[in-house]
Amino acid sequence: MDGVIADVEPQLIKYYQQQYNITIERSAIHGLSGKEAFPEDADSKKMLNTSGFFRTLDVMPGAVNAVKKLMENYEVFIVSAATEFPLSLLEKVDWLKEHFPFIEWRNVVLCGDKSIIKTDYIIDDHCKNLDFSAGKTIMFNAHHNIKQNHHLRVMNWDEILDFFEKE
Amino acid sequence: MDGVIADVEPQLIKYYQQQYNITIERSAIHGLSGKEAFPEDADSKKMLNTSGFFRTLDVMPGAVNAVKKLMENYEVFIVSAATEFPLSLLEKVDWLKEHFPFIEWRNVVLCGDKSIIKTDYIIDDHCKNLDFSAGKTIMFNAHHNIKQNHHLRVMNWDEILDFFEKE
Repeated sequence: MDGVIADVEPQLIKYYQQQYNITIERSAIHGLSGKEAFPEDADSKKMLNTSGFFRTLDVMPGAVNAVKKLMENYEVFIVSAATEFPLSLLEKVDWLKEHFPFIEWRNVVLCGDKSIIKTDYIIDDHCKNLDFSAGKTIMFNAHHNIKQNHHLRVMNWDEILDFFEKE
Repeated sequence: MDGVIADVEPQLIKYYQQQYNITIERSAIHGLSGKEAFPEDADSKKMLNTSGFFRTLDVMPGAVNAVKKLMENYEVFIVSAATEFPLSLLEKVDWLKEHFPFIEWRNVVLCGDKSIIKTDYIIDDHCKNLDFSAGKTIMFNAHHNIKQNHHLRVMNWDEILDFFEKE
Protein backbone atom coordinates (compact mmCIF):
# COMPACT_ATOMS: atom_id res chain seq x y z
CA MET A 1 0.00 0.00 0.00
CA ASP A 2 2.52 2.65 1.16
CA GLY A 3 5.04 3.29 -1.56
CA VAL A 4 2.95 1.44 -4.15
CA ILE A 5 -0.61 2.75 -4.26
CA ALA A 6 -0.14 5.40 -1.53
CA ASP A 7 2.56 8.01 -2.05
CA VAL A 8 4.25 7.95 1.34
CA GLU A 9 7.50 9.85 0.66
CA PRO A 10 6.03 13.38 0.36
CA GLN A 11 3.99 12.71 3.51
CA LEU A 12 7.08 11.67 5.48
CA ILE A 13 8.88 14.81 4.34
CA LYS A 14 5.88 16.97 5.29
CA TYR A 15 5.45 15.41 8.74
CA TYR A 16 9.23 15.55 9.38
CA GLN A 17 9.07 19.28 8.75
CA GLN A 18 6.01 19.68 11.01
CA GLN A 19 7.15 17.49 13.88
CA TYR A 20 10.92 18.06 13.90
CA ASN A 21 11.20 21.37 12.03
CA ILE A 22 13.67 19.81 9.61
CA THR A 23 13.29 20.40 5.90
CA ILE A 24 14.31 17.60 3.57
CA GLU A 25 14.43 17.65 -0.23
CA ARG A 26 13.19 14.49 -1.91
CA SER A 27 16.43 14.28 -3.89
CA ALA A 28 18.49 14.35 -0.69
CA ILE A 29 17.13 11.03 0.61
CA HIS A 30 17.82 9.17 -2.63
CA GLY A 31 19.49 5.87 -1.69
CA LEU A 32 19.02 6.28 2.05
CA SER A 33 17.15 3.85 4.29
CA GLY A 34 14.15 5.09 6.23
CA LYS A 35 16.28 5.43 9.37
CA GLU A 36 19.00 7.31 7.51
CA ALA A 37 16.52 9.60 5.77
CA PHE A 38 14.52 10.49 8.89
CA PRO A 39 16.91 9.86 11.80
CA GLU A 40 15.06 11.94 14.40
CA ASP A 41 12.02 9.70 13.97
CA ALA A 42 13.82 6.38 13.69
CA ASP A 43 13.36 5.22 17.29
CA SER A 44 9.96 6.62 18.20
CA LYS A 45 8.32 6.19 14.78
CA LYS A 46 6.22 9.09 15.97
CA MET A 47 5.22 10.15 12.46
CA LEU A 48 3.65 6.79 11.61
CA ASN A 49 1.83 6.78 14.94
CA THR A 50 0.31 10.21 14.36
CA SER A 51 -3.42 10.29 13.77
CA GLY A 52 -4.16 11.22 10.18
CA PHE A 53 -0.80 10.25 8.70
CA PHE A 54 -2.16 7.30 6.72
CA ARG A 55 -5.64 8.72 6.15
CA THR A 56 -4.35 11.75 4.25
CA LEU A 57 -1.76 10.12 1.99
CA ASP A 58 -1.88 11.03 -1.69
CA VAL A 59 -2.65 8.31 -4.17
CA MET A 60 0.39 7.18 -6.15
CA PRO A 61 0.01 8.67 -9.63
CA GLY A 62 -1.70 6.26 -12.00
CA ALA A 63 -2.48 3.68 -9.33
CA VAL A 64 -6.28 3.85 -9.44
CA ASN A 65 -6.63 3.27 -13.16
CA ALA A 66 -3.84 0.70 -13.25
CA VAL A 67 -5.34 -1.39 -10.42
CA LYS A 68 -8.72 -1.23 -12.14
CA LYS A 69 -7.11 -2.48 -15.35
CA LEU A 70 -5.27 -5.30 -13.58
CA MET A 71 -8.54 -6.38 -11.97
CA GLU A 72 -9.88 -7.18 -15.44
CA ASN A 73 -7.50 -10.14 -15.61
CA TYR A 74 -6.27 -10.74 -12.06
CA GLU A 75 -7.61 -11.04 -8.54
CA VAL A 76 -5.93 -8.11 -6.84
CA PHE A 77 -5.28 -8.03 -3.08
CA ILE A 78 -4.10 -5.02 -1.14
CA VAL A 79 -1.67 -6.32 1.47
CA SER A 80 -0.37 -3.72 3.89
CA ALA A 81 1.99 -3.96 6.84
CA ALA A 82 -0.17 -2.17 9.38
CA THR A 83 -0.43 -4.01 12.70
CA GLU A 84 2.72 -2.26 13.99
CA PHE A 85 0.74 0.98 13.89
CA PRO A 86 -2.73 0.30 15.34
CA LEU A 87 -4.02 3.78 14.48
CA SER A 88 -3.33 3.03 10.84
CA LEU A 89 -5.75 0.10 10.65
CA LEU A 90 -9.01 2.00 10.35
CA GLU A 91 -7.31 4.86 8.48
CA LYS A 92 -6.06 2.47 5.82
CA VAL A 93 -9.48 0.87 5.40
CA ASP A 94 -11.12 4.31 5.16
CA TRP A 95 -8.45 5.51 2.71
CA LEU A 96 -9.08 2.51 0.48
CA LYS A 97 -12.84 3.11 0.61
CA GLU A 98 -12.28 6.68 -0.54
CA HIS A 99 -9.70 6.13 -3.27
CA PHE A 100 -10.23 2.49 -4.29
CA PRO A 101 -13.94 1.92 -3.58
CA PHE A 102 -14.00 -0.90 -6.13
CA ILE A 103 -11.76 -3.06 -3.93
CA GLU A 104 -13.86 -5.26 -1.66
CA TRP A 105 -13.10 -5.86 2.02
CA ARG A 106 -12.45 -9.50 1.09
CA ASN A 107 -9.35 -8.42 -0.83
CA VAL A 108 -7.75 -6.31 1.89
CA VAL A 109 -5.10 -7.73 4.22
CA LEU A 110 -3.59 -5.74 7.08
CA CYS A 111 -0.69 -7.62 8.54
CA GLY A 112 2.77 -7.52 10.03
CA ASP A 113 5.15 -9.99 8.44
CA LYS A 114 4.07 -10.59 4.84
CA SER A 115 5.89 -13.91 4.52
CA ILE A 116 2.71 -15.99 4.96
CA ILE A 117 0.95 -14.16 2.12
CA LYS A 118 1.24 -16.25 -1.01
CA THR A 119 0.33 -14.69 -4.32
CA ASP A 120 1.38 -15.25 -7.93
CA TYR A 121 2.85 -11.76 -8.09
CA ILE A 122 3.81 -9.21 -5.47
CA ILE A 123 4.42 -5.50 -6.01
CA ASP A 124 6.19 -3.94 -3.04
CA ASP A 125 8.78 -1.30 -2.27
CA HIS A 126 10.56 -3.31 0.45
CA CYS A 127 12.94 -6.19 -0.22
CA LYS A 128 12.06 -7.64 3.18
CA ASN A 129 8.62 -8.34 1.70
CA LEU A 130 9.77 -9.35 -1.77
CA ASP A 131 12.65 -11.64 -0.80
CA PHE A 132 10.42 -14.34 0.73
CA SER A 133 7.68 -14.23 -1.85
CA ALA A 134 6.72 -17.40 -3.67
CA GLY A 135 5.46 -15.40 -6.64
CA LYS A 136 7.09 -13.14 -9.19
CA THR A 137 8.39 -9.98 -7.58
CA ILE A 138 8.16 -6.37 -8.72
CA MET A 139 9.96 -3.69 -6.72
CA PHE A 140 8.36 -0.26 -6.80
CA ASN A 141 11.10 2.37 -6.85
CA ALA A 142 11.62 4.24 -3.58
CA HIS A 143 14.40 6.23 -1.95
CA HIS A 144 15.21 3.36 0.39
CA ASN A 145 15.56 0.63 -2.26
CA ILE A 146 17.79 2.42 -4.77
CA LYS A 147 20.81 0.29 -3.86
CA GLN A 148 18.96 -3.02 -4.05
CA ASN A 149 18.79 -4.58 -7.48
CA HIS A 150 17.80 -8.23 -7.12
CA HIS A 151 14.14 -7.63 -8.04
CA LEU A 152 12.58 -6.17 -11.16
CA ARG A 153 12.43 -2.42 -10.54
CA VAL A 154 9.52 -0.33 -11.81
CA MET A 155 9.47 3.45 -11.63
CA ASN A 156 5.71 3.94 -11.91
CA TRP A 157 2.37 2.26 -12.61
CA ASP A 158 2.77 2.56 -16.39
CA GLU A 159 5.75 0.24 -16.15
CA ILE A 160 3.70 -2.20 -14.09
CA LEU A 161 1.00 -2.29 -16.76
CA ASP A 162 3.69 -2.81 -19.40
CA PHE A 163 5.02 -5.74 -17.41
CA PHE A 164 1.63 -7.41 -17.11
CA GLU A 165 0.87 -6.89 -20.79
CA LYS A 166 3.81 -9.14 -21.57
CA GLU A 167 2.82 -11.81 -19.02
CA MET B 1 -9.53 -15.66 16.23
CA ASP B 2 -13.32 -15.75 16.80
CA GLY B 3 -14.41 -19.26 17.61
CA VAL B 4 -10.82 -20.42 18.15
CA ILE B 5 -9.02 -18.18 20.64
CA ALA B 6 -11.97 -15.83 21.28
CA ASP B 7 -15.22 -17.36 22.52
CA VAL B 8 -17.71 -15.67 20.23
CA GLU B 9 -20.86 -17.79 20.77
CA PRO B 10 -21.75 -16.54 24.27
CA GLN B 11 -21.16 -12.97 23.09
CA LEU B 12 -23.53 -13.41 20.12
CA ILE B 13 -26.19 -14.81 22.44
CA LYS B 14 -25.70 -11.93 24.87
CA TYR B 15 -25.85 -9.23 22.19
CA TYR B 16 -28.86 -10.91 20.52
CA GLN B 17 -30.68 -10.65 23.83
CA GLN B 18 -29.64 -7.00 24.30
CA GLN B 19 -30.30 -5.80 20.77
CA TYR B 20 -33.31 -7.89 19.73
CA ASN B 21 -34.71 -8.95 23.11
CA ILE B 22 -34.61 -12.58 22.04
CA THR B 23 -33.21 -15.20 24.40
CA ILE B 24 -31.35 -18.12 22.88
CA GLU B 25 -29.96 -21.17 24.65
CA ARG B 26 -26.56 -22.34 23.42
CA SER B 27 -27.97 -25.85 22.90
CA ALA B 28 -30.74 -24.51 20.65
CA ILE B 29 -28.35 -23.27 17.95
CA HIS B 30 -26.47 -26.57 17.72
CA GLY B 31 -26.10 -27.39 14.01
CA LEU B 32 -27.48 -24.08 12.77
CA SER B 33 -25.62 -21.65 10.54
CA GLY B 34 -24.99 -18.14 11.79
CA LYS B 35 -27.91 -16.84 9.76
CA GLU B 36 -30.22 -19.57 11.05
CA ALA B 37 -29.13 -19.08 14.64
CA PHE B 38 -29.44 -15.29 14.67
CA PRO B 39 -31.92 -14.50 11.86
CA GLU B 40 -32.85 -10.99 13.01
CA ASP B 41 -29.21 -9.94 12.66
CA ALA B 42 -28.45 -11.82 9.43
CA ASP B 43 -28.86 -8.91 7.02
CA SER B 44 -27.63 -5.94 9.04
CA LYS B 45 -24.86 -7.75 10.93
CA LYS B 46 -25.54 -5.08 13.52
CA MET B 47 -24.07 -7.07 16.38
CA LEU B 48 -20.66 -7.42 14.73
CA ASN B 49 -20.68 -3.71 13.88
CA THR B 50 -21.38 -2.68 17.46
CA SER B 51 -18.54 -0.94 19.27
CA GLY B 52 -17.15 -3.18 21.99
CA PHE B 53 -18.38 -6.50 20.60
CA PHE B 54 -14.90 -7.78 19.71
CA ARG B 55 -13.05 -5.93 22.47
CA THR B 56 -14.99 -7.66 25.26
CA LEU B 57 -14.97 -11.26 24.00
CA ASP B 58 -13.98 -13.93 26.48
CA VAL B 59 -10.85 -15.92 25.80
CA MET B 60 -11.57 -19.47 24.64
CA PRO B 61 -10.79 -21.75 27.60
CA GLY B 62 -7.24 -23.06 27.47
CA ALA B 63 -6.24 -20.92 24.48
CA VAL B 64 -3.60 -18.76 26.16
CA ASN B 65 -1.54 -21.60 27.58
CA ALA B 66 -1.99 -23.76 24.49
CA VAL B 67 -0.81 -21.02 22.11
CA LYS B 68 2.18 -20.37 24.37
CA LYS B 69 3.01 -24.07 24.25
CA LEU B 70 2.67 -24.24 20.46
CA MET B 71 4.98 -21.24 20.14
CA GLU B 72 7.76 -23.36 21.66
CA ASN B 73 7.87 -25.41 18.45
CA TYR B 74 5.97 -23.42 15.84
CA GLU B 75 5.71 -19.91 14.49
CA VAL B 76 2.12 -19.02 15.35
CA PHE B 77 0.16 -16.41 13.38
CA ILE B 78 -3.23 -15.04 14.41
CA VAL B 79 -5.22 -14.62 11.20
CA SER B 80 -8.61 -13.01 11.61
CA ALA B 81 -11.30 -12.12 9.10
CA ALA B 82 -11.82 -8.52 10.19
CA THR B 83 -11.87 -6.07 7.30
CA GLU B 84 -15.63 -6.60 6.82
CA PHE B 85 -16.09 -4.92 10.21
CA PRO B 86 -13.80 -1.87 10.36
CA LEU B 87 -14.59 -1.18 14.02
CA SER B 88 -13.21 -4.60 14.87
CA LEU B 89 -9.71 -3.84 13.59
CA LEU B 90 -8.39 -1.83 16.51
CA GLU B 91 -10.53 -3.80 18.98
CA LYS B 92 -8.96 -7.06 17.85
CA VAL B 93 -5.43 -5.68 18.13
CA ASP B 94 -6.20 -4.28 21.60
CA TRP B 95 -7.82 -7.58 22.65
CA LEU B 96 -4.74 -9.50 21.57
CA LYS B 97 -2.48 -7.09 23.45
CA GLU B 98 -4.52 -7.70 26.62
CA HIS B 99 -4.94 -11.47 26.44
CA PHE B 100 -2.03 -12.61 24.23
CA PRO B 101 0.65 -9.98 24.91
CA PHE B 102 3.33 -12.47 23.92
CA ILE B 103 2.15 -12.42 20.29
CA GLU B 104 4.04 -9.78 18.30
CA TRP B 105 2.39 -7.43 15.81
CA ARG B 106 4.44 -9.18 13.11
CA ASN B 107 2.38 -12.32 13.64
CA VAL B 108 -1.07 -10.73 13.41
CA VAL B 109 -3.04 -10.69 10.15
CA LEU B 110 -6.39 -8.95 9.78
CA CYS B 111 -7.94 -9.83 6.48
CA GLY B 112 -11.03 -10.68 4.50
CA ASP B 113 -10.66 -13.76 2.35
CA LYS B 114 -8.11 -16.09 3.98
CA SER B 115 -7.33 -17.99 0.80
CA ILE B 116 -4.04 -16.14 0.18
CA ILE B 117 -2.74 -17.03 3.65
CA LYS B 118 -0.49 -20.03 3.36
CA THR B 119 0.55 -21.86 6.50
CA ASP B 120 1.55 -25.43 7.32
CA TYR B 121 -1.48 -25.80 9.59
CA ILE B 122 -4.67 -23.85 10.01
CA ILE B 123 -7.05 -23.97 12.96
CA ASP B 124 -10.40 -22.38 12.10
CA ASP B 125 -14.09 -22.84 12.80
CA HIS B 126 -15.25 -22.08 9.24
CA CYS B 127 -14.97 -24.52 6.35
CA LYS B 128 -14.84 -21.57 3.96
CA ASN B 129 -11.41 -20.84 5.44
CA LEU B 130 -10.27 -24.44 5.82
CA ASP B 131 -11.34 -25.75 2.41
CA PHE B 132 -8.80 -23.71 0.45
CA SER B 133 -5.90 -24.14 2.82
CA ALA B 134 -2.65 -25.56 1.53
CA GLY B 135 -1.77 -26.82 5.00
CA LYS B 136 -3.23 -29.41 7.35
CA THR B 137 -6.63 -28.33 8.58
CA ILE B 138 -8.13 -28.47 12.06
CA MET B 139 -11.77 -27.47 12.54
CA PHE B 140 -12.60 -25.98 15.92
CA ASN B 141 -16.06 -27.16 16.94
CA ALA B 142 -18.83 -24.54 16.70
CA HIS B 143 -22.60 -24.55 16.43
CA HIS B 144 -22.42 -23.70 12.74
CA ASN B 145 -20.02 -26.45 11.67
CA ILE B 146 -21.66 -29.44 13.39
CA LYS B 147 -22.91 -30.88 10.09
CA GLN B 148 -19.57 -30.51 8.29
CA ASN B 149 -17.19 -33.38 8.73
CA HIS B 150 -14.51 -33.18 6.06
CA HIS B 151 -11.91 -31.65 8.38
CA LEU B 152 -10.43 -32.94 11.63
CA ARG B 153 -12.76 -31.71 14.36
CA VAL B 154 -11.42 -30.64 17.75
CA MET B 155 -13.65 -29.80 20.69
CA ASN B 156 -11.16 -27.72 22.68
CA TRP B 157 -7.55 -26.63 23.00
CA ASP B 158 -6.52 -29.80 24.85
CA GLU B 159 -7.38 -31.76 21.74
CA ILE B 160 -5.30 -29.36 19.63
CA LEU B 161 -2.28 -29.90 21.87
CA ASP B 162 -2.85 -33.67 21.65
CA PHE B 163 -2.87 -33.39 17.85
CA PHE B 164 0.39 -31.48 17.75
CA GLU B 165 2.10 -33.84 20.17
CA LYS B 166 1.63 -36.56 17.58
CA GLU B 167 2.89 -34.44 14.68
